[in-house]
Amino acid sequence: MGLSERRLKIGVMGASSCDARTAALAEDVGRFIARAGAVLICGGGAGVMEAASRGASRSGGLVVGILPAEDESKANPYVGIPIVTGMGNARNAINALTCHSLIAISGGPGTLSEIALALKVGTPVVGLTVRPRPSRLSKSRLNSPRLVY
Amino acid sequence: MGLSERRLKIGVMGASSCDARTAALAEDVGRFIARAGAVLICGGGAGVMEAASRGASRSGGLVVGILPAEDESKANPYVGIPIVTGMGNARNAINALTCHSLIAISGGPGTLSEIALALKVGTPVVGLTVRPRPSRLSKSRLNSPRLVY
Amino acid sequence: MGLSERRLKIGVMGASSCDARTAALAEDVGRFIARAGAVLICGGGAGVMEAASRGASRSGGLVVGILPAEDESKANPYVGIPIVTGMGNARNAINALTCHSLIAISGGPGTLSEIALALKVGTPVVGLTVRPRPSRLSKSRLNSPRLVY
Amino acid sequence: MGLSERRLKIGVMGASSCDARTAALAEDVGRFIARAGAVLICGGGAGVMEAASRGASRSGGLVVGILPAEDESKANPYVGIPIVTGMGNARNAINALTCHSLIAISGGPGTLSEIALALKVGTPVVGLTVRPRPSRLSKSRLNSPRLVY
Repeated sequence: MGLSERRLKIGVMGASSCDARTAALAEDVGRFIARAGAVLICGGGAGVMEAASRGASRSGGLVVGILPAEDESKANPYVGIPIVTGMGNARNAINALTCHSLIAISGGPGTLSEIALALKVGTPVVGLTVRPRPSRLSKSRLNSPRLVY
Repeated sequence: MGLSERRLKIGVMGASSCDARTAALAEDVGRFIARAGAVLICGGGAGVMEAASRGASRSGGLVVGILPAEDESKANPYVGIPIVTGMGNARNAINALTCHSLIAISGGPGTLSEIALALKVGTPVVGLTVRPRPSRLSKSRLNSPRLVY
Repeated sequence: MGLSERRLKIGVMGASSCDARTAALAEDVGRFIARAGAVLICGGGAGVMEAASRGASRSGGLVVGILPAEDESKANPYVGIPIVTGMGNARNAINALTCHSLIAISGGPGTLSEIALALKVGTPVVGLTVRPRPSRLSKSRLNSPRLVY
Repeated sequence: MGLSERRLKIGVMGASSCDARTAALAEDVGRFIARAGAVLICGGGAGVMEAASRGASRSGGLVVGILPAEDESKANPYVGIPIVTGMGNARNAINALTCHSLIAISGGPGTLSEIALALKVGTPVVGLTVRPRPSRLSKSRLNSPRLVY
């Protein structure tokens, strides 16, 4: 796979722990990335990162995990190529430079820093989140169940 | 200056270009930090960073600039100790870990990433900005001119 | 490619410019790595890195380039997955942690730093170089032309 | 301390554990650096780094420690300004760029990587070590006890 075949790299960033609906969303995103022939770049950890990695890997995609740790055993099992930085959150700047675009799913300050670093260097960012569980009163508005994760 | 005298390190983060009122605010903050006996940590650049450095330096304080560039000539003239990282925005993670607390003044995505990285590692953050210039209608609310920068 | 298929990662480090015999050696090493089913990790630049990347890429292997620059256009054309660190020589520490073993071919201080960083974290290192051009007197010792690059 | 007073920064690199004679050498070097009015830059750790820091600090000098850890409690007690990188050996590249010159004392692969990174970016390096303990036979050559550490 050389220059002529150099593939699109899409990053998925998000919390290292998440609820089932957020994981389902992330897994779908990973699947779509793989089916589109792009490489999934992520932090290689658990939660949103693992769910997206699982989606991509099970669809035959390649997953690159840019790990904060010094040890690749910390990568989730769906990471095909762990990049072991040993530099903690400083690796977030690598994600921002490496991805052609970045999808942020849920997440806290770590994910916010990746969004900000991406914007700083001009990498396009899309934010996704699950719809809050509808209360009884608003249930009637749920007319598009395919969008609910 | 050893352990017993190890001083508080306060970070000032912000845009690398700013208007005069923001610069005046940053310079005051730098001055207060120096007078309190703390070391000013900043990115070593222009704008808010330079104004804060000038305030601290002119009050006899020590300014450490953690530079993204590979060359210390890029440091503003008030930086006493340039730390030359050569690692671009990845150095923002160093600021977040090094400062005991961080003051963000104005700024864009770069500053946002520093705020997020600080919150991620538990470093307290304070955000400051200048009050928007009052329109005629709201002028009567300006009863505290000492707060206006 | 998930955990069960996680492949060996072999690094090739060396000078960013080199003579033809050194390039031929590096290209052969890249070819052997690809044929063994391993991923080639390199700095993504020219010289030894490009020759090894060419060898691996032309044998159907995957090449990951961990770039010092902020821009993936700096990668040699055989890099399939550029990791854009924007952190100059600090990325050498990533190479040392990421590779399961590292082959150093020729090179100067940059390559030496990668060897040292690899030894520091326990990554095995092999050094290769071309045989000095034989003088007339020693020519008779040249009985194994297949080893000469 | 601004630009006009920006001081020379001398790095001392070396093993994180060392024997008493090497420590004595490092402490002397730290003392000389402080007396010359320069800032001592080091990795902030134990062994050679701590001995040099002690020498500089006790002579009234300023010690900046560029720490690999994520926590400044890891700094030796003579470090006045800990820079907390959280990026392991990647911080060696910062030392190489930050120091105006670098003195390597004893040490293993980590120190070797710092020497190589310094040479790579053009920072002058001096290597020092203690004289091997003289055997009986060579004892008569010991005519300059002031040089023995």
